[in-house]
Amino acid sequence: MGVVTEPQPSRRRATVHDVAREAGVSRGTVSRVLNGGYVSEQARAAIEAAIRTVGYVPNTAARNLVMQRSRAVGFIVHEPHALFLEDPNIGAIMLGANTVLSDADLQMVCLVTDSARDTERVTRYLSGGFVDGVIIVSARAADPITDAVVRLGVPAAFVGHPQTTVPLPWVGIDNFTAARDITRQLAKTGRKRVGMVAAALDRDSGADRLAGFKEALGDTFDPDLVVEIPLYEYTAGLRATQELLERAPDVDGIFAASDAVAAGVLTALRRSGRTVPDDVGVVGFDDSSWAERCFPPLSTVHQPAAGVGERAAQLVVAQLAGQDVPRDGVLLDSPIVWRDSA
Amino acid sequence: MGVVTEPQPSRRRATVHDVAREAGVSRGTVSRVLNGGYVSEQARAAIEAAIRTVGYVPNTAARNLVMQRSRAVGFIVHEPHALFLEDPNIGAIMLGANTVLSDADLQMVCLVTDSARDTERVTRYLSGGFVDGVIIVSARAADPITDAVVRLGVPAAFVGHPQTTVPLPWVGIDNFTAARDITRQLAKTGRKRVGMVAAALDRDSGADRLAGFKEALGDTFDPDLVVEIPLYEYTAGLRATQELLERAPDVDGIFAASDAVAAGVLTALRRSGRTVPDDVGVVGFDDSSWAERCFPPLSTVHQPAAGVGERAAQLVVAQLAGQDVPRDGVLLDSPIVWRDSA
Repeated sequence: MGVVTEPQPSRRRATVHDVAREAGVSRGTVSRVLNGGYVSEQARAAIEAAIRTVGYVPNTAARNLVMQRSRAVGFIVHEPHALFLEDPNIGAIMLGANTVLSDADLQMVCLVTDSARDTERVTRYLSGGFVDGVIIVSARAADPITDAVVRLGVPAAFVGHPQTTVPLPWVGIDNFTAARDITRQLAKTGRKRVGMVAAALDRDSGADRLAGFKEALGDTFDPDLVVEIPLYEYTAGLRATQELLERAPDVDGIFAASDAVAAGVLTALRRSGRTVPDDVGVVGFDDSSWAERCFPPLSTVHQPAAGVGERAAQLVVAQLAGQDVPRDGVLLDSPIVWRDSA
Repeated sequence: MGVVTEPQPSRRRATVHDVAREAGVSRGTVSRVLNGGYVSEQARAAIEAAIRTVGYVPNTAARNLVMQRSRAVGFIVHEPHALFLEDPNIGAIMLGANTVLSDADLQMVCLVTDSARDTERVTRYLSGGFVDGVIIVSARAADPITDAVVRLGVPAAFVGHPQTTVPLPWVGIDNFTAARDITRQLAKTGRKRVGMVAAALDRDSGADRLAGFKEALGDTFDPDLVVEIPLYEYTAGLRATQELLERAPDVDGIFAASDAVAAGVLTALRRSGRTVPDDVGVVGFDDSSWAERCFPPLSTVHQPAAGVGERAAQLVVAQLAGQDVPRDGVLLDSPIVWRDSA
């Protein structure tokens, strides 16, 4: 039975100015309260009272909507669970990106997608304008997230080379050349029967490392000495090595497609009674923090993971600033680090 | 000199219905396009034309604002760079949380804070309504993020026990009892001079592990056999062990406060010419994926990291559903896993 009053379109919405005037404080102080910063208890009480009096509604999300700016950049890790845990590079890439985004006062929001349902939800999240840009790690061919990014025109950069041709910049390393060079160096330690535990052949990194390995060995390449596993993963590396040793007990050198795989190779060799590097030389790929904690410490390819994350973030920040960036690849150096495993 | 038309308040904003009618497709098909899903090229073209014709503006952020629902939950990792990379548990906790949030159709957004600037920005992000709830890992005493969460009344759960008394639920393990029990088991292998590399004494986990160690040794506890390091970290563990061996060359057992620290202990012992477990027995804490890749594989305390993440996420989901949850701690089991290092 009450009287329903229509909202009055002419009535001005209360602003931070109104709150500040009512509370007798500066706008900056009001902003600090709204943004969760520190102010004196007295000022806070006055501002909270003023907010109620003038009917102010903080409106950050609406402002972001209007400005098309969330001040957030998504960091999308498109990996199955196991790999995310196995790959210490992802953390380093993430922290490198965070440093650059933080300098630009952008909030990095990391979105993990390890299922079809995650992928669908992340795609929705991107469409909802919750981020102004994205960094995508490990995009696969025919990836709905990549498709959505391209369709929505979200400023983006990839870590690693997406296998589909998309008009977006990417940052990576030259996996082919690095794999070729470390295989050559392994062979030069006097190895005659060099095998490989190859991984993730459905991505450019995995496929390129195998191609580099073949190139290095040339005529001496023997396909029987290559065992393939689906992911860069310890347990798979261990089992693959057991298979390799059954096939070719005389193998005397092994290139593991990643450090985690190499750790599995070392365990399998130890269990078979072989010593490293005397009986078998082993090299890895990544130079993750655990490479030097293996026993013996791994000879490996250094991936500039933090640098890759920084560069990818810079490419997104540049696009957000309206700059043109080349829609192709940036390759960073990946030197060989020689330790004791070969 | 044109005529400025005031916006007509009575004019209805175009909806998805209007777009669907105009395009001659179902609402569901329009939604799929808006959410970045797959539709035929023909349907997409028709819908895009219809969106322009009826003047439809996708309004996800505004809807979220009105509903007070972003359908996102923040996962805040409050760690310095080094520790984030050193601690494989964080990834496992994150993935455990993601599984539960994903089932609830909530987007997990991971926010890394490793500087004062990050902390300020994350606090702002929380205040801006970009997340409906938060999971906080490694909150420290007097943490501005914790303060903001409490002040804003954001549904939250902590991983680990925050050292300030906050009226919020937390999930963890009984570090004291686990440390006491594994120290006792180490001592029972016939060790007479048991030391500890203690870490992170500014947090409950680190302080409780040291207290459990003392409790286990009782009268035989010797403060000279404890070396303290600031973080759970490999290099610090290595150096601390070198110091311990100088102080007490007769040490025959070492409890390392984490697996990463234990890896440093193993390296230092190997460099000093001691064998493990014959000369010195070593135990760790975490049972991270790398525990079994150490040489020798580590005897350690299993942290149910994925389970901790799942439980914390369940507590946030329950609060979002309007359920009351106890504002205290949930302790999960942390059994001892005995391998070859002691």
